[in-house]
Amino acid sequence: MEKENNKKILRLPTIKRLPIYLHILKRLEEEGQEYVSTTTLIDELDFEPVLVRKDLVLMGIPGKPRMGYCLKDMIVAIENFLGWNRIDDAFLVGVGSLGSALMGYQPFEENGLKIIAGFDVDKSKIGTKIHGKPVFALDKLPELSKRMKVKVGIITTPWQYAQEVADQMIEAGIVGIWNFSMFKIKVPKNVVTHNESLAAGLAVFSVKLKTMHPELSKAN
Amino acid sequence: MEKENNKKILRLPTIKRLPIYLHILKRLEEEGQEYVSTTTLIDELDFEPVLVRKDLVLMGIPGKPRMGYCLKDMIVAIENFLGWNRIDDAFLVGVGSLGSALMGYQPFEENGLKIIAGFDVDKSKIGTKIHGKPVFALDKLPELSKRMKVKVGIITTPWQYAQEVADQMIEAGIVGIWNFSMFKIKVPKNVVTHNESLAAGLAVFSVKLKTMHPELSKAN
Repeated sequence: MEKENNKKILRLPTIKRLPIYLHILKRLEEEGQEYVSTTTLIDELDFEPVLVRKDLVLMGIPGKPRMGYCLKDMIVAIENFLGWNRIDDAFLVGVGSLGSALMGYQPFEENGLKIIAGFDVDKSKIGTKIHGKPVFALDKLPELSKRMKVKVGIITTPWQYAQEVADQMIEAGIVGIWNFSMFKIKVPKNVVTHNESLAAGLAVFSVKLKTMHPELSKAN
Repeated sequence: MEKENNKKILRLPTIKRLPIYLHILKRLEEEGQEYVSTTTLIDELDFEPVLVRKDLVLMGIPGKPRMGYCLKDMIVAIENFLGWNRIDDAFLVGVGSLGSALMGYQPFEENGLKIIAGFDVDKSKIGTKIHGKPVFALDKLPELSKRMKVKVGIITTPWQYAQEVADQMIEAGIVGIWNFSMFKIKVPKNVVTHNESLAAGLAVFSVKLKTMHPELSKAN
């Protein structure tokens, strides 16, 4: 059970919606707008109106009568809340197809996560560059993490290696691990982990599809 | 044809956990086990024990006293539920870094989603192969979808093109769209969509990290 000892702690679903708000607010700002009305946001967002109104209240940004919300203030508030106004340097371990993609995934860098190098055990990858970023041998990780003061790690290895890699990261001083493997790594209490699963997304999509279009079934 | 008698509607969080169960059950089966106890599952899973017990009940698989759950039965039940015992052919539009990665992402194919071709407007990509799969010009999509009876589409384009691509997919007879762009596409009622956002995962990870390690802050 989570304790609700701080009213400012947003719930997970709200946090997950924040990047979408941010994305739209930035787009409107680029289009030259300064203010946005709740109605426009609701139109753009395709979320339930009641959710949007609730999120806006939770974020604590006051709107101005007749003008709506100041885009600049909202963008700053959301970026502050997410910590996306700062940059965390990160190391990624497991330069396979997913790992390579994340190393070149622009939205991460725009939102405060800068993957500065990849690591692998595959000799054909070591010494190469992926999206302009170097790939090092995994055994260089401890030395480089300490020297470059990197505190964030991303795991995109097959599940079999995830725990071992996590242990190495933690030993090297990394305190935040974003784990894309299917293995739930165990970490000490001071280390933050977040498990990401593309398979979870596929599960939800598959169930929706199967429920609405059972006629698609094709034996495997 | 499998029977569709499981009318129980599982909640989203349970559905999202199913791939993790499946992954562990398959691993135990490969290791030569036939049965698994709830205790072992709880140990392996790192979810709250009460959640695991609840999920097992929801899935409706009866355990045997002293033996536990039959791995094979559980695997079949979960795959049936997710529709992962069938294969859906899919087309992917937007062969950038994320799109290319998904075209080579083995777990999708193992779980019933087979991306058979990519589409792009970039001439340097058209005619090439990514992970052994052909990349076609986007304007070939309608003809090929109809000819190959592809009903599932994946969008990995920049957000600006997502709606246009979705419209083309729907026009071509696609009824399920997995959308990785940040744009909430609008679709007719008979079309299933699922919006996937890596930024949502980054938001949750960032907030956890900022909350637990505020000392990491580094001005942008």
